Amino acid sequence: MGKKLYHGAAYYPELWDSVVIDQDLQLMKETGINIIRMGEFAWSTLEPEEGKIDVSFFAELINKFYENGIETVMCTPTPTPPIWMTHGFPERLFVDMAGRRMGHGSRQHICSNNQYFRERAAIIAEKLAKGLGSLPGLIGWQLDNEFKAHVNECTCATCKELWHKWLREKYRTIGSLNNEWKIGAGQPAYRSFEEVPVPENTASFRSLPLRMAYRQFSMEKIAEFADEQAEVIRQYSKAPITHNSSIGFHVDNERLFKNLDFASFDTYATIEHAGAYLINCDIWRNLKKDKGFWIMETSPSFSASLEGTATPHPNGYLKAEAAAAYALGSEAFCYWLWRQQRTGCEQPHGSVISAWGKPAIGYENVLEVERMREALEPILLSSQSCQAEVALVYSDHAKAYFQNGPFKKLNYRGFITEFYQQILSNGIHRDVIQPGADLEGYKLLFTPYLPSLPEDAAERARQFAEKGGIWITGPLTGDGGTAIPEDDDELVLEQKYGEGKIVQLHFIPRSEEEKKRLEKIIDQYANEAGVDLRMDISPGTIAIPRKAEGNQIWVMVNMDGNGGEIDLPFKGYDLISECAVPCGKTEIGKFEYKVLQSFESHSPAVS
Amino acid sequence: MGKKLYHGAAYYPELWDSVVIDQDLQLMKETGINIIRMGEFAWSTLEPEEGKIDVSFFAELINKFYENGIETVMCTPTPTPPIWMTHGFPERLFVDMAGRRMGHGSRQHICSNNQYFRERAAIIAEKLAKGLGSLPGLIGWQLDNEFKAHVNECTCATCKELWHKWLREKYRTIGSLNNEWKIGAGQPAYRSFEEVPVPENTASFRSLPLRMAYRQFSMEKIAEFADEQAEVIRQYSKAPITHNSSIGFHVDNERLFKNLDFASFDTYATIEHAGAYLINCDIWRNLKKDKGFWIMETSPSFSASLEGTATPHPNGYLKAEAAAAYALGSEAFCYWLWRQQRTGCEQPHGSVISAWGKPAIGYENVLEVERMREALEPILLSSQSCQAEVALVYSDHAKAYFQNGPFKKLNYRGFITEFYQQILSNGIHRDVIQPGADLEGYKLLFTPYLPSLPEDAAERARQFAEKGGIWITGPLTGDGGTAIPEDDDELVLEQKYGEGKIVQLHFIPRSEEEKKRLEKIIDQYANEAGVDLRMDISPGTIAIPRKAEGNQIWVMVNMDGNGGEIDLPFKGYDLISECAVPCGKTEIGKFEYKVLQSFESHSPAVS
Amino acid sequence: MGKKLYHGAAYYPELWDSVVIDQDLQLMKETGINIIRMGEFAWSTLEPEEGKIDVSFFAELINKFYENGIETVMCTPTPTPPIWMTHGFPERLFVDMAGRRMGHGSRQHICSNNQYFRERAAIIAEKLAKGLGSLPGLIGWQLDNEFKAHVNECTCATCKELWHKWLREKYRTIGSLNNEWKIGAGQPAYRSFEEVPVPENTASFRSLPLRMAYRQFSMEKIAEFADEQAEVIRQYSKAPITHNSSIGFHVDNERLFKNLDFASFDTYATIEHAGAYLINCDIWRNLKKDKGFWIMETSPSFSASLEGTATPHPNGYLKAEAAAAYALGSEAFCYWLWRQQRTGCEQPHGSVISAWGKPAIGYENVLEVERMREALEPILLSSQSCQAEVALVYSDHAKAYFQNGPFKKLNYRGFITEFYQQILSNGIHRDVIQPGADLEGYKLLFTPYLPSLPEDAAERARQFAEKGGIWITGPLTGDGGTAIPEDDDELVLEQKYGEGKIVQLHFIPRSEEEKKRLEKIIDQYANEAGVDLRMDISPGTIAIPRKAEGNQIWVMVNMDGNGGEIDLPFKGYDLISECAVPCGKTEIGKFEYKVLQSFESHSPAVS
Repeated sequence: MGKKLYHGAAYYPELWDSVVIDQDLQLMKETGINIIRMGEFAWSTLEPEEGKIDVSFFAELINKFYENGIETVMCTPTPTPPIWMTHGFPERLFVDMAGRRMGHGSRQHICSNNQYFRERAAIIAEKLAKGLGSLPGLIGWQLDNEFKAHVNECTCATCKELWHKWLREKYRTIGSLNNEWKIGAGQPAYRSFEEVPVPENTASFRSLPLRMAYRQFSMEKIAEFADEQAEVIRQYSKAPITHNSSIGFHVDNERLFKNLDFASFDTYATIEHAGAYLINCDIWRNLKKDKGFWIMETSPSFSASLEGTATPHPNGYLKAEAAAAYALGSEAFCYWLWRQQRTGCEQPHGSVISAWGKPAIGYENVLEVERMREALEPILLSSQSCQAEVALVYSDHAKAYFQNGPFKKLNYRGFITEFYQQILSNGIHRDVIQPGADLEGYKLLFTPYLPSLPEDAAERARQFAEKGGIWITGPLTGDGGTAIPEDDDELVLEQKYGEGKIVQLHFIPRSEEEKKRLEKIIDQYANEAGVDLRMDISPGTIAIPRKAEGNQIWVMVNMDGNGGEIDLPFKGYDLISECAVPCGKTEIGKFEYKVLQSFESHSPAVS
Repeated sequence: MGKKLYHGAAYYPELWDSVVIDQDLQLMKETGINIIRMGEFAWSTLEPEEGKIDVSFFAELINKFYENGIETVMCTPTPTPPIWMTHGFPERLFVDMAGRRMGHGSRQHICSNNQYFRERAAIIAEKLAKGLGSLPGLIGWQLDNEFKAHVNECTCATCKELWHKWLREKYRTIGSLNNEWKIGAGQPAYRSFEEVPVPENTASFRSLPLRMAYRQFSMEKIAEFADEQAEVIRQYSKAPITHNSSIGFHVDNERLFKNLDFASFDTYATIEHAGAYLINCDIWRNLKKDKGFWIMETSPSFSASLEGTATPHPNGYLKAEAAAAYALGSEAFCYWLWRQQRTGCEQPHGSVISAWGKPAIGYENVLEVERMREALEPILLSSQSCQAEVALVYSDHAKAYFQNGPFKKLNYRGFITEFYQQILSNGIHRDVIQPGADLEGYKLLFTPYLPSLPEDAAERARQFAEKGGIWITGPLTGDGGTAIPEDDDELVLEQKYGEGKIVQLHFIPRSEEEKKRLEKIIDQYANEAGVDLRMDISPGTIAIPRKAEGNQIWVMVNMDGNGGEIDLPFKGYDLISECAVPCGKTEIGKFEYKVLQSFESHSPAVS
Repeated sequence: MGKKLYHGAAYYPELWDSVVIDQDLQLMKETGINIIRMGEFAWSTLEPEEGKIDVSFFAELINKFYENGIETVMCTPTPTPPIWMTHGFPERLFVDMAGRRMGHGSRQHICSNNQYFRERAAIIAEKLAKGLGSLPGLIGWQLDNEFKAHVNECTCATCKELWHKWLREKYRTIGSLNNEWKIGAGQPAYRSFEEVPVPENTASFRSLPLRMAYRQFSMEKIAEFADEQAEVIRQYSKAPITHNSSIGFHVDNERLFKNLDFASFDTYATIEHAGAYLINCDIWRNLKKDKGFWIMETSPSFSASLEGTATPHPNGYLKAEAAAAYALGSEAFCYWLWRQQRTGCEQPHGSVISAWGKPAIGYENVLEVERMREALEPILLSSQSCQAEVALVYSDHAKAYFQNGPFKKLNYRGFITEFYQQILSNGIHRDVIQPGADLEGYKLLFTPYLPSLPEDAAERARQFAEKGGIWITGPLTGDGGTAIPEDDDELVLEQKYGEGKIVQLHFIPRSEEEKKRLEKIIDQYANEAGVDLRMDISPGTIAIPRKAEGNQIWVMVNMDGNGGEIDLPFKGYDLISECAVPCGKTEIGKFEYKVLQSFESHSPAVS
């Protein structure tokens, strides 16, 4: 890894015969696919009966594809445990917070804390690692798939027992738990850990501390499972390990990826939500800072997994997405899925080729991505992502708080993305970081929508301000999330703090007017903080700085299909067209990308 | 049957005393009611304790009404099993797919596959058939009422056992089942039939093959129950047997009516959905081709069963509905219900007379229906429905597919009705047929929205085209239902096939523009196919051809209350007004009906 | 009670340390708070382990606050039974109609019919009454809090047993029950009371008689619990007893308050629903006619308990609310809550001061209420509420009927409030009375939306008309609630009855035109009935008459913040500004209140 830009697809050879597989191999080569991901749903293929495990099918495929220039990320198959694991063992099944036991027939139907499941998962991972871990074509591992995408917290008997154990380890005494939790009228006191329920049916007033603790328990347990699996694999394979995650799932990605080797995610945003796509790139690049991240799944055309109809991306948008991702630090841009399913609920999902082996809708766009990838590869492999001067904190705990808390209708992801959009509109290069991230190197820090800002994060932010940074906090941060009424007159509160400043925002930018106001505030403080890594661009176009040897390059991408304009502060050179570009206004076409190199002294400094 | 046009109502004498019943008899005679339907909810009246069955109450009533010119359709009372059948026997109750057991107190609360229920149902049917089956007033039987209207598939322990048996009979080996089902990523392989679950709680990705198979199992089982009941009755009664069904219920009507004698349905469409009303007439006429169908239930005024408010039909619409139904082949036009309930959730439902015996809203319209019926009866009894030249396939399996499949938001009934509407707008006489129907005699065949077109139906359609027919297929047909993206540029694909043609439609007509486009395509191919049975009429008016002795008549009905215009291709004679009608444009009044007979040689040929 | 106007707040000292409590006491004095309510969620504080009860904490507080001029309403703590009562005893928990058992962690999670719960509730009530009942600072008791606010009918095994007992007592024989219930097609007959189910999962057609009977059972049982608790308290305390109820909960307030001493309620209407606020004042004043009522809970600023955001009251509205309440007969105007919670789902709820002891949003409005209270207190304590000449019947049984009945979408509270609004728009002083209320003294009676008007109430209404009153009934009254179709032409039907009249309304006033029509009808019959207690005021301002010694006063309040105009029929004197006011038009400012006294002979007579 790190030696090429990957262009790939998810592949399910276990569903097809060898004639189709040969056709696929040929078509992938024609298309420019250089990486496949396999195996995440193949447990019943690998182990049709308990203990009868055979990985040779995949070993042969990995070798065959490698011989044809296509490398492999292999997955552990734990999202779909075979029927023999649950039939006759209802106690192993997932139970939701309403007490409903999940049935077989979909995914994630087992309790991932079940001891027997953990044992079988370790055995299948070991067999895969032993059998495939040293193959030259295998360049990475993916654990499971989309943890907690389809389910939330399990409340089965196993979980209940582990919950009480977890509470005891966390709080030591029941008095300590009561002290932390018993702070709202009508909240109960417990006499022992055994009395603390799992979240269940209650009337409208839920216990927020109970819900938040249970979510944390669940998020730690799934990360613990990932740690266990990674440990097994590392005994037999040196290939780096990731997980295909998302900020939409019920996980704490900061914790989940702590012991994994690189970050991957899936995304299915439409062009209207290009901001949601870009914030993801900025989040995942910063999750494992020293490594490139992967877009492990995205649609080659449209996302219609469970919807009745969907509008495909406009022609050209896929290329813009991929160019932006590569320039923002992605090592890979992979589709779900290569070949359309022949049946099942995901049959209408976007694919590269149809079930009968013909180009599917969007195929021309995939070819366009490949041409762009070839053009950008030498430029991007010889340059690196720049750390931004501006950081925005994203928190899965805050997301959980808003989901469980009193603000029933507040959507954390929507709010944070909207906030991010105003940074983007200012043409500012930005990192989106986790609450536990180091703040070294930043000039401007944003912490909106963090009701329960952890004390260590707050301390780091204060030190950041003390040393001269500008810390802009709120709305809804650090006060347990008291709703700010709409006609509050104090708007922005600013105070000196050490050599820097702390600024409090007291409004939620919802109307167009409020969004404009936030955009201006960001501009004002970015100027005050001396933020240089920004570019004067028209809306809908983005500018991404990268460090090249002894110089700096900017990748420009038009994301909205309207084309745009960049006001270049330097005289540059277009590395794609190989033409000089004058200082001042220059145009960019619909979904076009440009790479501009500056040779002048007044170009923005590289951090 | 077949000797008169019936005008009737559902009647619940078990709820009233003899004074009221005498009043009802008198009022029915005044109103023109000549048929009543009784008994479907009367099980606890007929058999208040297990085994104590007495049918004499109904025997006396049937005789008494018959003596007064009113005939009877008697129902088996199985939708409402008495409390003694379930109290203390929860295992006999219906269990839904979320695992919730139904309680007593409504309808269809028992599992209709329960062995004890089947036994008791056979006994009560036998007693009714023995006691009433030879009475001269009894002209027909209705089994149960609205099978699977209020519930879907049951998942109780009995059903689970029968399901495994059914699977074994259908697939023979578990490998064969796996082979047919295991074709989507993440779908499980089963080792035995016992392992195959009933559909239960799962995460968002459901197993479509499992769901579809279970629906089919359920639809076959309810038809099997109908077969059993019919067999019992036929031992003691020669009266023909039907069921009061609907295309809205969870049944396969093609299978359900296979062993029954004539087709009946209920309908509660408002005037805005006149198309939904008409498609029903065209469906049910073709379900049992050699027999007239019955409208067993419709509202005399408005449908407000469970709604807070409802707008009554505009005056005149009821007559237009009834005229259209009789002309389209209905032998009966019956209301639900005769006398308003005194309480309960259906108290506000439209009725002919109020609970206190006075004319209810719409009563004048009922009298108007009766006058129309008297005028049309001699004409319609001396003529027959014409087979159409154009056929549209309607499929309950396709409906089930869209309900269970990935296209969560696609409404099959809405789509097919909208498609039908464009045939109607062309003034074309049409049959709406089942997938298994014979295609003899048709010139133009439409098969839209059939994702899993059965191979035998496809073969019949190919032969139809080979012999010169034009087969227009799609959208969403035969390809497992892949969603067609909205900006697909191929629209209509046409290919020669034998002496005929196969045409593929690739767009879903949703916008007004797309509907117009479909309307034009239909017109073009109807011309090409040489469809004669059509009439140039203004929108909102329909023209129904019928074969009369040595000639042809057309029944025209204005359905939208705006009146309209017909461009007559022949010089005719108005059988109602007894006036000659010139060739060319002639007007029709609001909700008016006309019967025009042609004497000229250039009139459309009768098929 | 009765010697001052109370201005108060709910207080939770069990959640704070003594330093905070001392600060609260000081702040309350500064704010003008003279009453606190405590204890309703404090059971686990009072009795942390079964049988270890200590009430001294509250005893000391009541004394301390009393010494500082602040009196106390003490609550029984039964809405939040401690964990020791349910942990390990699932059979004590509430079970809803879908069969789901409630878990611990919120409120009202226990079955209030459970025998053990009743015993423990009696013991804690006795200890509180013994320990606090004679303290001089304790001026009243509140039983529990918001009965049946968060839950509806329980269906646990205990309830099922009591249900059968209740049915036997009510109907005596199962035949009698069947006779009353078995009057709709498809309804079952029962052979014993044991067979009658509790309401459970059924298909769409529910049994209305079963549902209504079960609601009545549940409403009687919760009132029985209140009776039991009151009886225990009265053995040791002479302070009057109330409950904090609402017309939104699943209770029959007429029955619930029968054996209590005074009426209290909570309300969280926004200014857009000022009509809903005022109808409450008119309802609760008439529930216990000889006593002032209490507003036990309202928000000091905005209601955002479970919502994401909320708009605070406009400045001045809180004062207008409080002035209207006091003038309409309220003895108290109390906030929920004094000090904001530090966490939990109600943390964002409006409060008087913040969690950290600073004025919260709306604090200035609270001070404004206090200044108004001081100005009005001498005037209101020396005058009394007038009985109105016009009565509108409000019924919790009708509300239950519409919730359970066939009219799924009809909202009783919305309809009755809209009807009330048209009386209000006429400037007419009105009482809103219970179905069982005496009609003595009224001239005009309205009984809209009472589908099952009880026979005794109908008899009283007929006698009222016979003696000369005008009884206006309908829409949807007395006929089991048959929906009136929208284009019914009969509108208002009027008939002489004795010396008076019975008028039937046959339309639901929904459009603006229909509302205007109802307003005119009310005006016409108010004139005909000789209603004098009314005032010609502009919309958004109200006029409240009160009896003063030998004279009459009118309290005017502008509720909509737009100011308004009053056309005074007398020359008066403004008791607040101490100026004379001429006969004819006079203005009132935004949210202003005025008290006008008449000295002239043509002033409206005091009833």
